[in-house]
Amino acid sequence: MATPAPSLEQAVAAIRPPDEEAMSRAAARQATLTKPPGSLGQLEELSIRLAGMMRTEQPRIGGKAIIIAAGDHGVVAQGVTAYPQDVTAQMVLNFLAGGAAINVMCRQLSIRQIVVDAGVATKLPPHPDLRALGIGRGTADISRGPAMTREQAQASVENGISLAQECVESGIDLIGTGDMGIGNTTASAAITSAITGLPPKDVTGDGAGRPAAGLDHKIAAIKRALEVNSPDPADGLAVLSGVGGFEIGVLSGVMIGAAASGRPVVLDGFISGAAALIANVIAPAARDYMIAAHLSAERGHRAALNHLGLSPLLDLNMRLGEGTGAALAMPIIEAAVATLSEMATFGEAGVSGPTDEPGVREGEQ
Amino acid sequence: MATPAPSLEQAVAAIRPPDEEAMSRAAARQATLTKPPGSLGQLEELSIRLAGMMRTEQPRIGGKAIIIAAGDHGVVAQGVTAYPQDVTAQMVLNFLAGGAAINVMCRQLSIRQIVVDAGVATKLPPHPDLRALGIGRGTADISRGPAMTREQAQASVENGISLAQECVESGIDLIGTGDMGIGNTTASAAITSAITGLPPKDVTGDGAGRPAAGLDHKIAAIKRALEVNSPDPADGLAVLSGVGGFEIGVLSGVMIGAAASGRPVVLDGFISGAAALIANVIAPAARDYMIAAHLSAERGHRAALNHLGLSPLLDLNMRLGEGTGAALAMPIIEAAVATLSEMATFGEAGVSGPTDEPGVREGEQ
Repeated sequence: MATPAPSLEQAVAAIRPPDEEAMSRAAARQATLTKPPGSLGQLEELSIRLAGMMRTEQPRIGGKAIIIAAGDHGVVAQGVTAYPQDVTAQMVLNFLAGGAAINVMCRQLSIRQIVVDAGVATKLPPHPDLRALGIGRGTADISRGPAMTREQAQASVENGISLAQECVESGIDLIGTGDMGIGNTTASAAITSAITGLPPKDVTGDGAGRPAAGLDHKIAAIKRALEVNSPDPADGLAVLSGVGGFEIGVLSGVMIGAAASGRPVVLDGFISGAAALIANVIAPAARDYMIAAHLSAERGHRAALNHLGLSPLLDLNMRLGEGTGAALAMPIIEAAVATLSEMATFGEAGVSGPTDEPGVREGEQ
Repeated sequence: MATPAPSLEQAVAAIRPPDEEAMSRAAARQATLTKPPGSLGQLEELSIRLAGMMRTEQPRIGGKAIIIAAGDHGVVAQGVTAYPQDVTAQMVLNFLAGGAAINVMCRQLSIRQIVVDAGVATKLPPHPDLRALGIGRGTADISRGPAMTREQAQASVENGISLAQECVESGIDLIGTGDMGIGNTTASAAITSAITGLPPKDVTGDGAGRPAAGLDHKIAAIKRALEVNSPDPADGLAVLSGVGGFEIGVLSGVMIGAAASGRPVVLDGFISGAAALIANVIAPAARDYMIAAHLSAERGHRAALNHLGLSPLLDLNMRLGEGTGAALAMPIIEAAVATLSEMATFGEAGVSGPTDEPGVREGEQ
């Protein structure tokens, strides 16, 4: 029987720091495995972090899932993007039909995909694979007022927490975040500017397509959004309700929920980065459970990752969203865990260590 | 029935340039897929290259394999590494027992592993999964004379060609290269210096472990090897026989053989880079079939990739060899191909393009 979904407050309180003991043991184990010390580079560091999150020296990853949250943005009325709003709903239908990039990758990599209507403007027909958790039919125009009410912001985060908990209870150990929403790079740039303190021009890119009126036009809309709403950067729900989006709130909740369940969460690109900034304000302890999958080509993502102190695993000049970066990072994360947990030690394999360090020659008796 | 293995000359002659027509069609197809143009970044470029290699607009990757070639190096007598020579044979046994990093990754990623004794000093017991193709029991000390005869060099390359052809005939579409050999970063640095023209100090790193006598001692041995053998950089077999290694020759052959069979070859790190430099001298047309999996942390790898004009997919600070970098790149290469071949087009999915480019709105009638 599923555990009742925790409130935001309960989930935040449930996040424990990673297990230092498990991390120490994992680091010690790494030194005994049949390879030169440190030769697996970032995989070794990652494996030790995962040992801490999963509270065991030899973690194993069972199922994997990507939560693809979709939502619309009233700010598209300001002409901030080249694509029509209808594309959000059209792409949700494409996700359900299996035709989008993330669907192809999930099939290839055996990742469960969970498609969420977090607040799409168009009413979507019911579908067995669509989680209808829409808090509203798209946000209000952030350049003129708040995106949503504080209650809606909290509800969207709690929906994400609930989704993450449900995943973990069903055997998913690795959750990735994905997004779809025409206009959501505008909201994400506003969030990134609000929380990092960087000016909008430094964190705003073309998104899916440069608006007809130019990038400066988009930057001006973001400046107005920040002036009109002046969100308190120390209040995550205020930033989300002021300049955020419904799908961004769900993804912030997924991050908090994964951390509360003691599981890593794999961040996709710029939109997930903005959601992570909010999650980190609401629950700073959640940061230790975040893995940055890749560096998006979208301007502003690097600033978000720097603010969070996270290094991306991949840099493939991608900027699609949908969770595609998170999906591609999953085999690397699995490899990090599998090498830690499954490789033979020098002793087990009878392999010698360096000749000038006799103590390391565990293979020789 | 298996095709008779081609000679080196026949294999070189069989390499065709990638199919321009298939590449043009793949590029055109990319523009119709349900994503903003270019948003899959390096995956799109890679998918177009693969279309050219596999001569079809919608390539598919069947089986995957990593060929792990092991060989010993007489130059270890000069104290160029911290590890005893026995480790080469011990690690081959570890590969066969499934305890090494590459074995864990191959299991995780459904990659067939082919372990090759290309010239290990220790006599290895027969094993059903070990391909005994040893040309000699380790090379001679390159700091005092040639590593091997020219005939041995050619035979090791032809063994690699034969292995690649056998893989492709058995349904493998993606072949990765892996290596094991105590002392082989010394040989690889000598090869890289000989072919790129860079001085040994710029292409020599610590390898598996810094020698007790220091890095300068290793660099001095490499300088002597280049002076004693003075290999002609325009003669690949001369470089291989002068300062190379048996496993390096096999890997050069795998690269030429994959290209001759019209299949991509995924290069691992520094040793594979040295093998690729030799393959590129022998058969410049093979270069178009090479995919650089990752940038190794071993000094000298970047210079090899720059000389070849290849950009690595990953940069995870790894320097283990064995094919571990190649294995981790394989899911990304598969994703590149799968998105090209399996994603829905705008027209198929009924998704709109940018509003200011009505011609792209294929989804709308």
